[in-house]
This record gives sequence, structure tokens and C-alpha cells, in this order.
Amino acid sequence: MTNQTEDRRPLSRQIADELRNEIESGQHASGAKLPSQRQLAERFSAARNTVDEALKILAQEGLVVAEHGRGVFVRVKQPLIRLGSDRYSPKHRETGLSPFLIECARQGKVGRFEVLNIERIKPNKELAKQLHVSEKAKSVLRRENVFYADADPVYRVTTWIPWRIAQGTGLLQEEVPHQYGIHGVFEEKGHVMTRINDEITARMPTPEEVRYLNLSPGIPVIEVMHTSLDQDGEPYEVTRFVMRSDMNGLSYNVPVE
Amino acid sequence: MTNQTEDRRPLSRQIADELRNEIESGQHASGAKLPSQRQLAERFSAARNTVDEALKILAQEGLVVAEHGRGVFVRVKQPLIRLGSDRYSPKHRETGLSPFLIECARQGKVGRFEVLNIERIKPNKELAKQLHVSEKAKSVLRRENVFYADADPVYRVTTWIPWRIAQGTGLLQEEVPHQYGIHGVFEEKGHVMTRINDEITARMPTPEEVRYLNLSPGIPVIEVMHTSLDQDGEPYEVTRFVMRSDMNGLSYNVPVE
Repeated sequence: MTNQTEDRRPLSRQIADELRNEIESGQHASGAKLPSQRQLAERFSAARNTVDEALKILAQEGLVVAEHGRGVFVRVKQPLIRLGSDRYSPKHRETGLSPFLIECARQGKVGRFEVLNIERIKPNKELAKQLHVSEKAKSVLRRENVFYADADPVYRVTTWIPWRIAQGTGLLQEEVPHQYGIHGVFEEKGHVMTRINDEITARMPTPEEVRYLNLSPGIPVIEVMHTSLDQDGEPYEVTRFVMRSDMNGLSYNVPVE
Repeated sequence: MTNQTEDRRPLSRQIADELRNEIESGQHASGAKLPSQRQLAERFSAARNTVDEALKILAQEGLVVAEHGRGVFVRVKQPLIRLGSDRYSPKHRETGLSPFLIECARQGKVGRFEVLNIERIKPNKELAKQLHVSEKAKSVLRRENVFYADADPVYRVTTWIPWRIAQGTGLLQEEVPHQYGIHGVFEEKGHVMTRINDEITARMPTPEEVRYLNLSPGIPVIEVMHTSLDQDGEPYEVTRFVMRSDMNGLSYNVPVE
């Protein structure tokens, strides 16, 4: 910490900045335990309180994780890159796996999902307009899931399907009745995915999302509102992914049209 | 707050949950001032401290903003949707504007950028590999900017261009010497953007980004690593966008290939 006498940042902030630099330069490796509060207090000639504040700043940025009674650790980054534009490509069909299982397999992980809720619902105005269904009837099937990679919850997924398409397909049951997952079912009903429309935002999680996704402080979520369009340009499915940003990224390699 | 006797959430959390519901249901509109701490303390039969904690929870989620001496306000959402896959489309050429200026115009705003730094640099290993240039020479031009919509900083942008392309184009100067911006310059050098590759992640901002983007607490950034590919599939430009998530979203409407 050069120029300490001229430095106007609060001491806790100076310590946080210094430790952040050390983490980013690799002096403290991913997953490593930081020196104890006592050791840091000594090193920076600071009160334990001040060191504690500095560590809280880093926790809020998502750089470190405090484990009760064990110490403070550099957060392990485990990006599970979602295929993005490539996700639904027919070229993956030979694997015999659904998109999520392919993504997991690429990371050497085992994917699975847990159904939270399956229900036939009245859509809200926006969804009704998007899927060309009635607002006044239970015209949409909603499936809510949490997807896991090994033991980690990765994203919370809600899918809305017009009832005229879902009807009679078995999608009201927990087990998706197709090897390629839900998109195999749509193809059998005559809807081949020809374009996708993904709207992407990021925000801090709600308390419910913190619980479902087991999120540490300082980890935002990426929200993707995905719409599948068929060979006639008709939208036939909307899915919202709420993704842990510490385990997910998106990738779009696409033509400029 | 039903079942208060059975509710095990700390009171501050219960108050935060209640206020969040009210904000999300529109009872407190975007930009509205919340009731004072005194009023909230009375309503929830809670200590001022507890109300203060509840408001801090909401501020960390990015839902409210405390303005010193004025009170606590529901954060105004102003999404400036980036065109995403559509951003670089030739069909926008007739507007005579660069992509960022089109995005701003769509929102009724005036766009401009401020140059932080322009420098000829030695690239790091990864960038050298990506742009097919030498690691050992100053083979890359780096431009660092902040983009503004009206008075608001919107994103921090770093662009890396092989020196063999940038050389002699005027890109070493602050003013971009082309009506369509930097991409007009590339086209004149024979590189027509044919595909883009965007890698998207989200995270909490660094202190430097908080300063440049004037970020409130609880607002993550979206980071886009964009690569432009020309008619021969060659990458000729890499740009990193660090976007305020409270003013930006991404949109990809793309074919499934």
C-alpha cells in the first residue's frame, strides 16, 4: 500500500483493494484459504473489525466465501458454459442427449432436473400475446424445474407451452417422454426449431432464488427469456432460465443478418 | 404478514419481503419515495434499526436507492436494450448512425462516448492467439471508452484491433474517422462483418467500474466479449463491453444452425 499517508480510502477499503489484487493476480489461488483475521490485522496494522469489514466487501463482490468456523476462502470459479446459439443445433442429435445433458457432459458432470411444479394455467396478457393463446382459458402448460450439475443447482427453469401443443404429449407428467427432451416432443408435433429469440438481463437474486440455487452473497443471476420459433416463424414455447452467474455463461456465435 | 407467530425469518427479512412484494406488485411505483423509517417502524411494530436493516437488504438487491437526506426511493428501471444479434446488421446503414447511436435514438436519448485511453500495446497470450498477431511486438491497438446515453454512463468499452488493420486509418485519434463508426473503417480495409461471437457473463462490478459507471449498490454488470469475424471467418476485432445491468439488456434473434 503505497502512499498510505496520502490515501483517502478508508482502511477497510484499502485492505480489500490489496487482497483483491492478490486474488486476481493468483497469489491466493482459487479455493485457497486466506490468512486468518488475526494474521491480516497484524499485516495491515489494523483492528480485527477493520479486517472483518474488508472481507465483507470482498464477499459482497463474490470474490471470497466465508465458511462458518473454517475461515475465508477464495471462491472457486466453475463456469458451466451454456451453448447459447449452438444449444439447440441439430448437429448435437447424434449424441442422443438433451441440450442440458450435453452441456454437463462437456464439463464432465452428470445433469439431472427436479420438477417443482407442473400446471395448466391461464397465461398473463404478455404471454398470451406471445404464444397466440387465449387469456381467458387455461390455455398454457407451465413446467417449473431446477436443473442440477452433479450436486449443484445450476438454474431455475420455467417453461410455458400452448395447451394445444402440450395436450396428449405426456408433458403433464414429470418424466419428459422423449430422448431429446422436450424439444423432441415438439418436433413430433410438427414444430421444428428454426430460430430462437433470447432476451438476456442480469440482476441480484430474489430470496427464493437464493434458496433454490444455493447462492453465495455477491453472486448475481443471469435471466434468459427464450422463445422457440418454428419453420413458419411461429413461437411455440417460452422458457425463462434463471442462471447462477458463478456457474454459467452464454455464447452466441451467429451470422450478421 | 400472516402467521407471524410461526414465522422464523428475522423481522428485518420479513419487512424486506413485504416491501419487495409491494414494489413488485406496483403498490410503490417506479421512482416513488417509500414511507419514512419512522412510519415503517410504526407500521411493522419494529425498531428503527430493524427497518434500516430491511431497507439495506432491498438496496443490496438493487430494488431501492437511498438518497442521502431525502429518503429511500424505488429504483427507476431504464432498460437501454442493446440490439444484440441485430446490432451490426447492414439494414441499419440507411440511418447513417453507428450501432450505439441507433440504440440511443430508439430510446429517445443522445449517445456519445468519452475516450479514456488509446494505445498501441503488446497483447497478452490469449488475445494474440485470438487475433493472430505476435505476442512479442506492439501488434495491437487498444481503445478504451465510456459510452453515455444523455448524462448516464452506460457501458465501459475496450476494443482491441490488430495494428496491421488499424495502421493508417486514423483510429489512433480520438474522433473515429467514419460515419458508421469503427466498423465503417474496417469495411474500408476489406473486412465485412459476417459473423459475431459474443461470450456473456455477469458479475458484481470492480470498484473502478463502480466509479466509471456510477453504479448503485446491488447492480451487477453484464460483460460481453465480442469478436467480429470477416467474410473469410477471420477475427479482426475484439471488444469487451462492461454494461450496467440496470440500463442494459441483450437480445439475440438468431437462426438455429
